[in-house]
Amino acid sequence: MGNGNQPTPETQACSCLLRAVGLFVGDMRQSTEWVKRQVVAIQLLDCILRGVAQVMFVNNPVSGLLIVVGLFLQNPWWGLNGLLGTVVATASAILLKQNREAVLAGLYGYNGTLVGMLMAIFSAKEDWYWWLLVPNVFMSMMCPIVSSALSSVANKWDLPIFTLPFNILVCLHIAATGASHPYFPQVDIQPKTHLHMNGSTENFDIPQLFLSVPVGVGQVFGCDDPWTAGLILLALLLCSPTICFHAMLGSAAGMTVGVALAAPPRDIYSGLWGYNSVLSCIAIGGVFCAVTWQTHALALICAIFCAYLSSATLKLMSVLGLPACTWPFCLSTLIFLLISSENPNICRLPLSAVSYPEENLRYLRQLKSSEKAQSSQREEAPLEHDKPNIQLEVENESV
Amino acid sequence: MGNGNQPTPETQACSCLLRAVGLFVGDMRQSTEWVKRQVVAIQLLDCILRGVAQVMFVNNPVSGLLIVVGLFLQNPWWGLNGLLGTVVATASAILLKQNREAVLAGLYGYNGTLVGMLMAIFSAKEDWYWWLLVPNVFMSMMCPIVSSALSSVANKWDLPIFTLPFNILVCLHIAATGASHPYFPQVDIQPKTHLHMNGSTENFDIPQLFLSVPVGVGQVFGCDDPWTAGLILLALLLCSPTICFHAMLGSAAGMTVGVALAAPPRDIYSGLWGYNSVLSCIAIGGVFCAVTWQTHALALICAIFCAYLSSATLKLMSVLGLPACTWPFCLSTLIFLLISSENPNICRLPLSAVSYPEENLRYLRQLKSSEKAQSSQREEAPLEHDKPNIQLEVENESV
Amino acid sequence: MGNGNQPTPETQACSCLLRAVGLFVGDMRQSTEWVKRQVVAIQLLDCILRGVAQVMFVNNPVSGLLIVVGLFLQNPWWGLNGLLGTVVATASAILLKQNREAVLAGLYGYNGTLVGMLMAIFSAKEDWYWWLLVPNVFMSMMCPIVSSALSSVANKWDLPIFTLPFNILVCLHIAATGASHPYFPQVDIQPKTHLHMNGSTENFDIPQLFLSVPVGVGQVFGCDDPWTAGLILLALLLCSPTICFHAMLGSAAGMTVGVALAAPPRDIYSGLWGYNSVLSCIAIGGVFCAVTWQTHALALICAIFCAYLSSATLKLMSVLGLPACTWPFCLSTLIFLLISSENPNICRLPLSAVSYPEENLRYLRQLKSSEKAQSSQREEAPLEHDKPNIQLEVENESV
Repeated sequence: MGNGNQPTPETQACSCLLRAVGLFVGDMRQSTEWVKRQVVAIQLLDCILRGVAQVMFVNNPVSGLLIVVGLFLQNPWWGLNGLLGTVVATASAILLKQNREAVLAGLYGYNGTLVGMLMAIFSAKEDWYWWLLVPNVFMSMMCPIVSSALSSVANKWDLPIFTLPFNILVCLHIAATGASHPYFPQVDIQPKTHLHMNGSTENFDIPQLFLSVPVGVGQVFGCDDPWTAGLILLALLLCSPTICFHAMLGSAAGMTVGVALAAPPRDIYSGLWGYNSVLSCIAIGGVFCAVTWQTHALALICAIFCAYLSSATLKLMSVLGLPACTWPFCLSTLIFLLISSENPNICRLPLSAVSYPEENLRYLRQLKSSEKAQSSQREEAPLEHDKPNIQLEVENESV
Repeated sequence: MGNGNQPTPETQACSCLLRAVGLFVGDMRQSTEWVKRQVVAIQLLDCILRGVAQVMFVNNPVSGLLIVVGLFLQNPWWGLNGLLGTVVATASAILLKQNREAVLAGLYGYNGTLVGMLMAIFSAKEDWYWWLLVPNVFMSMMCPIVSSALSSVANKWDLPIFTLPFNILVCLHIAATGASHPYFPQVDIQPKTHLHMNGSTENFDIPQLFLSVPVGVGQVFGCDDPWTAGLILLALLLCSPTICFHAMLGSAAGMTVGVALAAPPRDIYSGLWGYNSVLSCIAIGGVFCAVTWQTHALALICAIFCAYLSSATLKLMSVLGLPACTWPFCLSTLIFLLISSENPNICRLPLSAVSYPEENLRYLRQLKSSEKAQSSQREEAPLEHDKPNIQLEVENESV
Repeated sequence: MGNGNQPTPETQACSCLLRAVGLFVGDMRQSTEWVKRQVVAIQLLDCILRGVAQVMFVNNPVSGLLIVVGLFLQNPWWGLNGLLGTVVATASAILLKQNREAVLAGLYGYNGTLVGMLMAIFSAKEDWYWWLLVPNVFMSMMCPIVSSALSSVANKWDLPIFTLPFNILVCLHIAATGASHPYFPQVDIQPKTHLHMNGSTENFDIPQLFLSVPVGVGQVFGCDDPWTAGLILLALLLCSPTICFHAMLGSAAGMTVGVALAAPPRDIYSGLWGYNSVLSCIAIGGVFCAVTWQTHALALICAIFCAYLSSATLKLMSVLGLPACTWPFCLSTLIFLLISSENPNICRLPLSAVSYPEENLRYLRQLKSSEKAQSSQREEAPLEHDKPNIQLEVENESV
């Protein structure tokens, strides 16, 4: 970067192109610098679009834009509620003076997006029932408060909080109002005692099964439109091919478990068996752990476990009249992140270093080489490394 | 105190009067010294009266006495059970050799008070059913054990345990016996699916709505008698006007949310929407955080959130046949205490320094002035302050 | 051991006999060394038998063998599933590179045993339904993952994880499938609203009541055969008489609470009121705390509390269609282990030093004498001891 070699015009053109592409892939770190010099409105827009994309662990405003288009394609009223939720949650985080970097990365927005979307989806009133915005604004406003509180708890284990605030607040709203509420009625959720096909193994519609894989990705936002799902997958691909691949893998694993556990075909086709596994598989397979064959296998096991857990959660929470939300994803992924193994290939990243999978790998390689250089420099005083993630944190500070 | 100025008679009289008043307001710290020199019976009485008052975060035996009178006014059998619970819980804490200071401040008694009261209230047998004292004594005896265990967990985050032991033990007793138990039948709690008014907006009875504000304060002890509520408010006022004000504010906020969520008027009038918000509002608005405009606003938001949560808890727990107890208060207040903000005006006190709101403010002012003095003395070595509460702890040790 | 005294033939014979007996009692530490030099198959067998015995906190392969015989006596299909679960869980822990010492002590096997056994017991299909092995293998495989995750959390308080992984996974499997599942139907669990005898105090069958005490010990593995219970008690006696005594005490306490709470006689006779108390009483009375009169009393209170909690858990979980498993044991024992008392006789051992009760006592005596020696040596620099368990940890490192 700062060396004295004079670049030839071809190299310059090439690097320009690479930088232009680089502007829109990954986490768009370069654009972050540009955005910081703009007016507040543009900063806020960037921060909100990143917030929408962070639902899928993607820190990229262009991906966020694609997803927003997808949401409005599914249902403009839902999309509006989702956007409003993101805006209110972000504004409330700023008022509460939460960590600026986290706010700018959209980490205080994504729960608001989901709260807004799902409150609109679970409302039994027709679309454009404007009074719904009142609880929507209140619940989105509570998002950073609950996020901050959960972070304080999860920090002790260096764990992320995922979509727990969304799960808590949406379940709270549905339990506090319910199906027979005069102002804010909810979709009636009946106890699901007969969730399964009645004995005979029906023939599944194979094309619909295949379609359920991308639709499962869309169900993360509560959308069952395949076009929306396609746009979301495109948004994932733009940021990181690894994330996109693991999203498909997770959805396929969830669908397979659904078939194996004899779930009703309609549930499988609508992607309800996939969306939790999608998120679990993305989280373990690259985002919070470095991608190796071992973590890849763990991600698959986590997706299967998560689908199993979905079935259990769906039934237990339906007794209380609540939806499953993304509780199965949160619980299963937290369990897998808490594993402490002596295997160096199961390597969890410290939360402060987490980025998209490709960047995580680059970070780790850099770390290892700097480590090697250090250890060859001073062989006389070897550092003691207890666990991989502690090792990373130590190294992180020294880098 | 130890200076050489000779006081004039007027100053002496004035200071005498102030000290006489000072003997009965606040946490009666001066009387603590006097009590420590008395026989064990008086020490125990002091400790039990403080325990009764600690339900409302008040560390004052005279307030405790007023509350006990209020409880006996409502129902002597309930009052007796409450007193017995306090005595047994305190004695059990002494046997278990818990922290002496905490026992003397009544911190091991208040859960016993509530366990005793509420077990008598939820019992379906007529009053003066003496066999009830057997589970009452056992559950009160368990209070310090559960308190000690929960404290060990909550200590990691410097959090108080509030009334969690009471919630756990009363729910345990009700679940273990139930409505059809031959010896200890409980009031039958039916699943509340139709909690709301049926559509039409009934006219509320405005005087009853106003009366529900003080009655909500009384419902902390499960009492709906306005006179009992009045005595409790008087007890709060004696210790700290700030606590009394926030109790009323919380009750009013809870009542408003009840009206907004179309609760049945009978529930609102009996103060059931208020009592959790009362406790939340007191805890955030002065007791565990220093009173500023920001924490004042947070206390109000917490009271509203708590009322929302009450509605959800009431419905979910009624499916399991359990009462809501004060779970909503505990959960909402713990969430708000766990918020970590970079705003210096949202300043949580370290648990060891918590007193009544006025004393908390004095403590903070003293702290700031001593901090200023220190920083002006040695400008060359500034301390690093990460978070307000860490800052306080550091300063606390140095003071 | 390494001294120069020449032993007489009598002493030699005596010590030989003592060592021969010593080979099979306690935790068979000497045999551990021998096993480590054998082929992998023998190591694995040792590790699996220890795993089966660890359900009762016994680290002894011969006890494990006795228990396995007992399980096959009750029902060979259940025994097979239990063994398979232990094998899969241990293998999965080895693959995940968990702590080698813990794996060899069987600490990653016992949850697998219980998962295998109880999944076979709760299955509504007839015995020898081979498809059941598929979820059995998957759930047993998940045991070390959940164990590792829970350990990461519990480590902060130096707590054991008990049978929590088993509880979580079996409840998960039952909730995910349910009574009407076409492939893996479960025993139908109906909400237990009328758990109690209808008013009149029936005459209990005294011999059956007495028989319920050993049967309660067998119910830890879900077995109601008195012969199985006898073999299990023999296995306990072989390892540690204290464990065996506390198992009987706990079962008797649970049975008494069942009678006092008017439980249906059939439940009491089948030992369902005892098994949680058995485990609680063993854990508190000697295994995790040193045996003194105070901890002995605590163990009894814990067993009573645990039986009370069993009644509550059974009812609450039956609303969700789930069995009580050993949740009451886990919750009550964790509460009692978290107590922090200033009483030196309530002395919790650090988790790394936990062994069987007699060894724990020997360890503590040794510790105290070495402490005394140290303090008499250097009187000028006394160590500060805040809490007994911290004291132990400090001493442990220095020893």
